[in-house]
Amino acid sequence: MAVRALVFDVFGTLVDWRSSIARAFAAAGIGGDPSELADDWRGRYAPALEESNRGQRPAGTLDDLHGATLDELLLARGLPPVDAATKAQLVRGWHELDPWPDVREGLELLRRDRVTATLSNGHVALLVDLARHGDLRFDAILSAELAGAYKPARRVYLRAAELLAVQPAKLMLVAAHPFDLAGARGAGLGTAFVDRPLEHGEGSPARSDPEADVSVASLLELAAKLSG
Amino acid sequence: MAVRALVFDVFGTLVDWRSSIARAFAAAGIGGDPSELADDWRGRYAPALEESNRGQRPAGTLDDLHGATLDELLLARGLPPVDAATKAQLVRGWHELDPWPDVREGLELLRRDRVTATLSNGHVALLVDLARHGDLRFDAILSAELAGAYKPARRVYLRAAELLAVQPAKLMLVAAHPFDLAGARGAGLGTAFVDRPLEHGEGSPARSDPEADVSVASLLELAAKLSG
Repeated sequence: MAVRALVFDVFGTLVDWRSSIARAFAAAGIGGDPSELADDWRGRYAPALEESNRGQRPAGTLDDLHGATLDELLLARGLPPVDAATKAQLVRGWHELDPWPDVREGLELLRRDRVTATLSNGHVALLVDLARHGDLRFDAILSAELAGAYKPARRVYLRAAELLAVQPAKLMLVAAHPFDLAGARGAGLGTAFVDRPLEHGEGSPARSDPEADVSVASLLELAAKLSG
Repeated sequence: MAVRALVFDVFGTLVDWRSSIARAFAAAGIGGDPSELADDWRGRYAPALEESNRGQRPAGTLDDLHGATLDELLLARGLPPVDAATKAQLVRGWHELDPWPDVREGLELLRRDRVTATLSNGHVALLVDLARHGDLRFDAILSAELAGAYKPARRVYLRAAELLAVQPAKLMLVAAHPFDLAGARGAGLGTAFVDRPLEHGEGSPARSDPEADVSVASLLELAAKLSG
């Protein structure tokens, strides 16, 4: 396939949410193991997005959703509710996640010959903050917010192709998550699986996507493969 | 006002459409003075956008609109229609406009302390091409396309504030055109007038906007004023 543009999943694919959110929990003084709390919070994410896609959660930004799932996490663990400032600080933590080490340079290499954009379930303002925090350069910030649905809903991928004015077949999603890549394939996009073996910490379950057009261990490897 | 984010008009404010489009006409070998043709084409832009906002032109991207107004221009001037390749090349010219000399550095300075984004009637894909052509770095590419209407429709400015998650009063439009600044003010945004005395060539009519919060001669001056 001739790839004219690349869209990138962000949480887990480009940024290490687990270490950053664990630090935010530790800084906030919430009881319990910070990494376990981070895993628990993140674990509530996909089901909440599905509920939102089915109309079972009120519409809002990912900040609203993170606020609600934080409340649910504290309740489920028998922890006391946090004050508004602490809650805002923790929710804000999702705007300040550190990129994986290969990402800044990889994005620079990849945008030399192709248009690059985010394509995340995070809202535009959050993605702007993440890109600024990590000094990551994209040609555009695209988000599920612009489609009014969350990935893996088909229209999120098609909206990205429409906004970049490329045929879906010439657009490639780069992601660490097979469910996301499957959604992109279903919408006619190309797919690149990037392995992030530490997304869930040491001992994360191995992942792969045999149907992906390309499978790589880093964005640097992806740049080499696409230009080779 | 405390400005948290800046959105920039693009055609005329950041890029010199006239010189670039005149070059495109010259390269295409269309009869007549290239600068006059560029002025004529641009002159058909605002009325066409108004017709589109009133539902009197079919929806489409700015490429579609530029294609239609090019046909109208050739017809009005008694020039023969151009072939599809030439037409595509001329329409494509709007994706490859050179920035004014202060713009690249000015944008870098301005984004140190504030979020920056385009806010143009050009569609996202066109703005991506313009930013890449001029090596201009923004935090986000925002467009009238994301609001489903053209400036100065109020909802274009409010959509930008919503997507950047800033209150309209903390968002400032930077533009060379009083009609655009008036639209932004009507939506509650701050406004910065930047003078582009050569937008319509030597002898362009003088412009000013006494109601603007700031008036400057370049983005460098704007960066100095906002940080001062």
